[in-house]
Amino acid sequence: MKKILNKPENYVNEMLEGLYIAHPDLITYTNNDVRCLVTANKKEGKVGIATGGGSGHLPLFLGYVGKGMLDGCSVGDVFQSPSAEQMHAVTKYIDSGAGVLYIYGNYNGDIFNFDMAAEMADFEDGIRVESVVGADDVASAGPTDLGQKSTRRGVAGIVFVYKCAGAAADAMLSLDEVKRVAEKAAHNVRTMGVALTPCIVPRVGKPGFSLGEDEMEIGMGIHGETGIRRGKLESADQITVEMLDQIVSDLPFTTGDEVAVLVNGLGATPVDEQYIVVRKINEQLGKLGISVHRFYVGEYATSLEMAGLSISVMKLDAELKTYLDAPAQTPFFVQL
Amino acid sequence: MKKILNKPENYVNEMLEGLYIAHPDLITYTNNDVRCLVTANKKEGKVGIATGGGSGHLPLFLGYVGKGMLDGCSVGDVFQSPSAEQMHAVTKYIDSGAGVLYIYGNYNGDIFNFDMAAEMADFEDGIRVESVVGADDVASAGPTDLGQKSTRRGVAGIVFVYKCAGAAADAMLSLDEVKRVAEKAAHNVRTMGVALTPCIVPRVGKPGFSLGEDEMEIGMGIHGETGIRRGKLESADQITVEMLDQIVSDLPFTTGDEVAVLVNGLGATPVDEQYIVVRKINEQLGKLGISVHRFYVGEYATSLEMAGLSISVMKLDAELKTYLDAPAQTPFFVQL
Repeated sequence: MKKILNKPENYVNEMLEGLYIAHPDLITYTNNDVRCLVTANKKEGKVGIATGGGSGHLPLFLGYVGKGMLDGCSVGDVFQSPSAEQMHAVTKYIDSGAGVLYIYGNYNGDIFNFDMAAEMADFEDGIRVESVVGADDVASAGPTDLGQKSTRRGVAGIVFVYKCAGAAADAMLSLDEVKRVAEKAAHNVRTMGVALTPCIVPRVGKPGFSLGEDEMEIGMGIHGETGIRRGKLESADQITVEMLDQIVSDLPFTTGDEVAVLVNGLGATPVDEQYIVVRKINEQLGKLGISVHRFYVGEYATSLEMAGLSISVMKLDAELKTYLDAPAQTPFFVQL
Repeated sequence: MKKILNKPENYVNEMLEGLYIAHPDLITYTNNDVRCLVTANKKEGKVGIATGGGSGHLPLFLGYVGKGMLDGCSVGDVFQSPSAEQMHAVTKYIDSGAGVLYIYGNYNGDIFNFDMAAEMADFEDGIRVESVVGADDVASAGPTDLGQKSTRRGVAGIVFVYKCAGAAADAMLSLDEVKRVAEKAAHNVRTMGVALTPCIVPRVGKPGFSLGEDEMEIGMGIHGETGIRRGKLESADQITVEMLDQIVSDLPFTTGDEVAVLVNGLGATPVDEQYIVVRKINEQLGKLGISVHRFYVGEYATSLEMAGLSISVMKLDAELKTYLDAPAQTPFFVQL
């Protein structure tokens, strides 16, 4: 395991210590627990937005806490859910009377813990909590039962949900309205990934799966969950077309649609390769009469040092476009 | 070679096509050559700043062209210098009568081509060009002859030079003054890197060197140039202390200094590990009575998918601090 770390069991907390040192103007923590990360710029009267999830996915999940996006994040160990108590502590800190919206990925551990945290906040503190679950990974299950009941996993597309809901909250909309915007964003985003190499969880010390020297896996999840097809590594254009076909046919996206596109590196893939994919996405969507309002390219939701990337596409309307374009400033996401 | 690409010989141009598609508000190209990248927001009367260098180091070099930083960049193939003609074309485009400053890393090919480009701009177009060469890599040679005559290579610390010079130009300072600021920044920044794995140049198709499964190399250059010590992989804290000792004793940085620190991932190293290093840097500098005005953490100067990171430290005075803190917006660097 070639990693720059000290003891594997200190990986997450030492990372968090570094994060607070580097970004004191944007983030702090509550409950004397570095894993209860909250904004350093609490805005009174605003709906609070919290997320949470396992470490190992930076910028997910904590990297989007800041101005104009999220207000708090409970952080688990690598690929593990934080506790209900940690999410509850975050919830108490970020509530300022307007209630709190949870936005997180569709994983059983997170759902269990965050539902419990919401109940604790309600019973113990009288804080109203609503939840929207990201379930954008087209590869992870069929298209039925989107939203709360989906069996699809949440992946990089949740960044669009954070962005739109965060801007809606920043515009001082009510909890019901912020939830409505988050749900609209979540229902209009689709993601598909491809993995080229595995990653190593520090405490485990060895890869969770293996891929042959000339193999790729289309649709692999961000924890190495099995995808939809393993095969010989193909060209960037071929991979892009296959992934985009799955995405486009799923919503479906159609002629005349305006979309935002996020091309996300999983960790070890150079951004050069992501831009090669951008080129082909633009060509393919152009052929379909779908116009791209905005591209985001870089690392937004990683799997440690996994090589590969994902493509997320969100269908826009005037409202989502306004919120997507609004300014934001977090340790990992700055938009003027 | 596990990369998401089409033909290796199209790697750079297809990457560039993707870049122009994703960032039309910030960048364009001149001379009908995608490798002659220039700002889409030319500011009349301002000193133009150009850089150039090989591909494979994104965000270096082209990623810093935009508002408040650089105005143009000539782009070579992976790890290869662009031509004098390409740099000349960029120079002509970005000049608006106030002259042009070149800021680039200390590599023979670049020096040869950019000196020639400067002469072409002078003779053919009457454009005054000055140059400042980044030579911040402490590992690459002894501390003598800093600046133009240095035998040290330029690495990630050049981002600080871009930022300060870019802000000085944006404040409409003269070419002599912008050059003075760039030289001051260049003389006050020191960098040291560590590599854990090699990278693969697409056209070559195999690694340029090898490192044992438990080995690291301190001081390795961003093209795989030999470093100062190869040894068994150590802990994050040990690596950080060794690198920082070399940096601090070189300038030297001393008690009472205020600095900016850039922790830069080389490509495949998760940003988590970089924050673990931030934690130790802060502790070590604190012990020395050196205060950190600002941390930058992420990927700023990569070597394709090389694993490892570098630490850059720049000593600040009031002037450099002002320019460092000024806003900027480029495809890869946004600061409010």
